[in-house]
Amino acid sequence: MTDGPLVWTEPFRVRSYEVGPGGQATVQTLGNWFQEAAGNHAYAHDVDGGEAAGWAWVMLRLRLRIHRLPAWRETGRLETWASGYRGALASREVRFLDSRSDVMAEGTSRWAVIDLVRRRPTRLPPALAHFPVPERPAPLTDEPPAPKAPDSLEREVHFTVRHSDLDVNQHVNNVAYLDWALEAVPSAFREAHVLREVDLAFKAESVFGDTVVSAVGSDGPAFAHSLTRLADGTPLAFVRTHWTPC
Amino acid sequence: MTDGPLVWTEPFRVRSYEVGPGGQATVQTLGNWFQEAAGNHAYAHDVDGGEAAGWAWVMLRLRLRIHRLPAWRETGRLETWASGYRGALASREVRFLDSRSDVMAEGTSRWAVIDLVRRRPTRLPPALAHFPVPERPAPLTDEPPAPKAPDSLEREVHFTVRHSDLDVNQHVNNVAYLDWALEAVPSAFREAHVLREVDLAFKAESVFGDTVVSAVGSDGPAFAHSLTRLADGTPLAFVRTHWTPC
Repeated sequence: MTDGPLVWTEPFRVRSYEVGPGGQATVQTLGNWFQEAAGNHAYAHDVDGGEAAGWAWVMLRLRLRIHRLPAWRETGRLETWASGYRGALASREVRFLDSRSDVMAEGTSRWAVIDLVRRRPTRLPPALAHFPVPERPAPLTDEPPAPKAPDSLEREVHFTVRHSDLDVNQHVNNVAYLDWALEAVPSAFREAHVLREVDLAFKAESVFGDTVVSAVGSDGPAFAHSLTRLADGTPLAFVRTHWTPC
Repeated sequence: MTDGPLVWTEPFRVRSYEVGPGGQATVQTLGNWFQEAAGNHAYAHDVDGGEAAGWAWVMLRLRLRIHRLPAWRETGRLETWASGYRGALASREVRFLDSRSDVMAEGTSRWAVIDLVRRRPTRLPPALAHFPVPERPAPLTDEPPAPKAPDSLEREVHFTVRHSDLDVNQHVNNVAYLDWALEAVPSAFREAHVLREVDLAFKAESVFGDTVVSAVGSDGPAFAHSLTRLADGTPLAFVRTHWTPC
């Protein structure tokens, strides 16, 4: 058993290098904060995996809905909590609150555990049976279908995985996938629209030196994105983004 | 007159997405923290420029010497202070201290002010005459010549300026230059060496969509790096990096 809190809370203050041209934190910044807080919550409960434990968390899906993005120097807090375990999957919710406790953004995520030796999904560690799940409504109540590849491609951009994309386990940081997907959206569209929702389904790992093809096509009022490895066409992630006019 | 502190201090705790494969904070992370703290210090003294003021700080040179990099979850603090004004140039020092107040890294920087309308260097604003310069020895006492272009090129990598490289003023974040320079160092060399010093001389701005050529060549025990705009060959920065075997 562990004695960490049911709901993990972290304060934040938006730093200069976390904002984009509009003066608001980027959605990548929200993704980074969530990743950090989720890791700290797991660490507080001693279920953060790692090399000694022989297993690691991997994110399978991430959805974020954005009401407004926090501004440069703005302070607020992030709340995250585990919301259930089903078979080999764990889910975790997140809310970003401003200083008046109004919700700025909220989301949900699904995770699996991989065996670090076999590099394959494995059962959730027994310690997780005791991880506390608070009685709290999930922020997002709709359950959209998983993002899939665009039907027709409008634009394609290539990226090469950098040393600076790698985390402590030599894995590409999840937020890099979000970055590659968003960069493929045409500048003129970005300037006239505000990002309201992202939905990422992670399919496979990429490694240092891979060339990643970030493709985008319209999907009704949304964009459908795919990230694939150029060398062999392996899908790395599918992403859906929703935008509204400025 | 202003009433901010002589020496600005910020605590830090290394986050999961700020470390690289070795489990230590990247030097880019130190660069980001320094940029943030310098901005906060200027803001506390009301000399941070901005659109309303009509001027902005630009970094001309940055040197960082690294004794050790802080580890994931490690805490410490950053100290920064103004160290002098000469003509149109201001200088600022920085130290990164661990929880026992041992110095992990230290550095110096030189800044100028640009007129935001004419996009050209201008005189330092009069308010700066009152910015406090403490009696404190500079961390780095040697004065190496400015970095210059490599004599012979060993390797060249191309990068395209991303939306996510842009700051609130649509300028490319200084740390992006450091990132591009380091990525050009061959992986085999990086794995066998530790980065001990970076020295960046910023020459020109790059803008969204530019293709940047990051070239590197040996310079005795160091690497000489150049960053140039592919379209017209404009030098954007020269960088020198020093490494020691692991």
